[in-house]
Amino acid sequence: MNIQDIRADFPILSREVNGQPLTYLDNGASAQKPQVVIDAITTAYSHEYANVHRGLHTLSTIATEKYEAVRGTIARFLGAPDENEIILNSGTTEAINMVAYGWAMPNLGAGDEILLTVMEHHANIVPWHFLRERQGVRINWVDCEADGSLEAQKIIDAITPKTKLIAITHLSNVLGTVVDVKTVCTEARKRGIPVLVDGSQGAVHMPVNVADIGCDFYAITGHKLYGPSGSGAIYVRRERMAEMRPFMGGGDMIREVSKDSVSYADPPMKFEAGTPGIVQTIGFGAALDYMMGIGMEAIAAHEADLARYAAASLSGRNFLTLQGTAKGKAAIFSFTMAGAAHAHDISTILDKKGVAVRAGHHCAGPLMEHFGVSATCRASFAMYNTRDEVDRLVQALELAHDLLG
Amino acid sequence: MNIQDIRADFPILSREVNGQPLTYLDNGASAQKPQVVIDAITTAYSHEYANVHRGLHTLSTIATEKYEAVRGTIARFLGAPDENEIILNSGTTEAINMVAYGWAMPNLGAGDEILLTVMEHHANIVPWHFLRERQGVRINWVDCEADGSLEAQKIIDAITPKTKLIAITHLSNVLGTVVDVKTVCTEARKRGIPVLVDGSQGAVHMPVNVADIGCDFYAITGHKLYGPSGSGAIYVRRERMAEMRPFMGGGDMIREVSKDSVSYADPPMKFEAGTPGIVQTIGFGAALDYMMGIGMEAIAAHEADLARYAAASLSGRNFLTLQGTAKGKAAIFSFTMAGAAHAHDISTILDKKGVAVRAGHHCAGPLMEHFGVSATCRASFAMYNTRDEVDRLVQALELAHDLLG
Repeated sequence: MNIQDIRADFPILSREVNGQPLTYLDNGASAQKPQVVIDAITTAYSHEYANVHRGLHTLSTIATEKYEAVRGTIARFLGAPDENEIILNSGTTEAINMVAYGWAMPNLGAGDEILLTVMEHHANIVPWHFLRERQGVRINWVDCEADGSLEAQKIIDAITPKTKLIAITHLSNVLGTVVDVKTVCTEARKRGIPVLVDGSQGAVHMPVNVADIGCDFYAITGHKLYGPSGSGAIYVRRERMAEMRPFMGGGDMIREVSKDSVSYADPPMKFEAGTPGIVQTIGFGAALDYMMGIGMEAIAAHEADLARYAAASLSGRNFLTLQGTAKGKAAIFSFTMAGAAHAHDISTILDKKGVAVRAGHHCAGPLMEHFGVSATCRASFAMYNTRDEVDRLVQALELAHDLLG
Repeated sequence: MNIQDIRADFPILSREVNGQPLTYLDNGASAQKPQVVIDAITTAYSHEYANVHRGLHTLSTIATEKYEAVRGTIARFLGAPDENEIILNSGTTEAINMVAYGWAMPNLGAGDEILLTVMEHHANIVPWHFLRERQGVRINWVDCEADGSLEAQKIIDAITPKTKLIAITHLSNVLGTVVDVKTVCTEARKRGIPVLVDGSQGAVHMPVNVADIGCDFYAITGHKLYGPSGSGAIYVRRERMAEMRPFMGGGDMIREVSKDSVSYADPPMKFEAGTPGIVQTIGFGAALDYMMGIGMEAIAAHEADLARYAAASLSGRNFLTLQGTAKGKAAIFSFTMAGAAHAHDISTILDKKGVAVRAGHHCAGPLMEHFGVSATCRASFAMYNTRDEVDRLVQALELAHDLLG
């Protein structure tokens, strides 16, 4: 894995921001795109575009083949036994809402419980609040430790006889904590409780095999995986698909529609209504091929090196407080600065040095409350980042401390 | 409006299919994209990409400004009084499902009626079947005439005291029939009944002004409007927004999330959950700017000429039966061929001559039943089509008739 070759594949990484080389450390929000993804989009629109599925002419056939091939690519990427267990969508938000509306809404009632961790992203919280507000489902929460770690056993211990769904992140978007979802799934499966894993961050940073994990649902987001915005997918175990009613209605997901009745296509089509995100899905496939070409083990090893280096560099600065120092954490670092410096102000100063980080609640309200902060800065790394960029982050933070401290 | 200049703007139109120049007449399913749209996408990913809304760094600010500017572009395109009445989404299917889940589900109960026309697309049928199946809402249907025409008065006459929503197409995707939705809205408004207009086809072929129409909801689809797949929007009148609960839950649509409670952002953000389709929305804006640059009146006039020419050419072939010959119809032609020739076989022969049409039920089951056909061929024209292409279609149909008739 030659990092400079990889960087050269991402056109945006050679640009400057405010006269400085771009140091893009906002990958937790969205990753940049390699040229192969941009080219896949351009080729599709310039030479091979038509609507998919129902067309018999040449362009529609080409587009359909390219689009449908991505289902197999995603199945390989996730280690799904069958590509028909992959539902294509616009990303994790849509995916979790589909599970909430399609599986949980008809199957859960007042008093039934959903188990979440305090590290969940709003995408894996708000759909469950809807069920709480609308049909009296209870939400139970598992807190993480002060260092951001969370043992699987603590989640397992929080299961009650009323727990009907466990919905947990694979990797915290704020703390970088990796959750041992496999152990949770093993115990949940013994009790017949489905587990939804929010893989928005997890699938970006480590090899994922849903068959090995043993989860029922695993959601991923294309734009965090170096793919286009508006792309994504969810793995759904076959028997859970059979328990789901359709989420959105429209073309493609039906078998027959008359004035008085409607019948539905077989899964996964049953859960894919209307013209899909054709070209962004094709681009998503190109992104996953690119990642698999480099190798998820290699990506994880490179990022583990960055994580160790950044942890050492950042923890050496006594004006910073790090949120999340769990063992084996991913290269995602949230921090606050001593004194009154607001995360937004820090981010703005970093930007002047070309360093892009995110500041705010990171769509994780309960976690912010748990740590007693209203906002943090977050530097989140990707496969194309370098130790030099860690150094540039630290230099920019020292400047911010000088100016704001 | 110079048609050859316009054609030169669409790179795919210069390609060949099966050794013949491409004659793309499948625009009703999806339109091709001008270079400005492809360039907008490439520029965004190559130089200006980051997640929107919550970022303070330069790239996020650029992306947010470009993304949010499209809301104003859509408001101008639709004649919406306020850009905050525009909700960005992935297209009409999501839009109508949002109205079904967000407005109709909490506001309609058993015995309440939704009025549809027989010309609706499955996207404007299946979400209402969900409400029928799940909460006992009734669906009433208004049939069109034998020639495909449908007077507004016939829809108005079908309103009952239990009608709680009228959901109608502006322009039939099969017949090309234009519905006088303004007259329907005027009468519905007197009775306090909201009207949803499916503008998937209508907004492509004629100037639209939602303030003049007086509708409550008007849904459009980006990929039919020369924009990227997975882009779209819906106009929602402000007072209807106030009656809606959120559809999807996740980031961006909240004000505060805690373990025990959730509060929501103001509209339109309340209805836009998660990372949106950033780059396809930017591309959608470029497509609408392109259309408005040419002028919707000019596009409509050009297509009206094509419609007249094609109607004369096709109706002169006695081996063809046309479905839909209403006065003032758009340039969308569905037909069957005398004898046993299946629409799929016709489409396949046409493709050998480079002519792309669609064959099937066109996601309009009730309309197929109404006309007593299981499938038709459909040639649907766009701003870049020419009279020469009508001639090529007719020549290819004559060949199909020779081979299959």
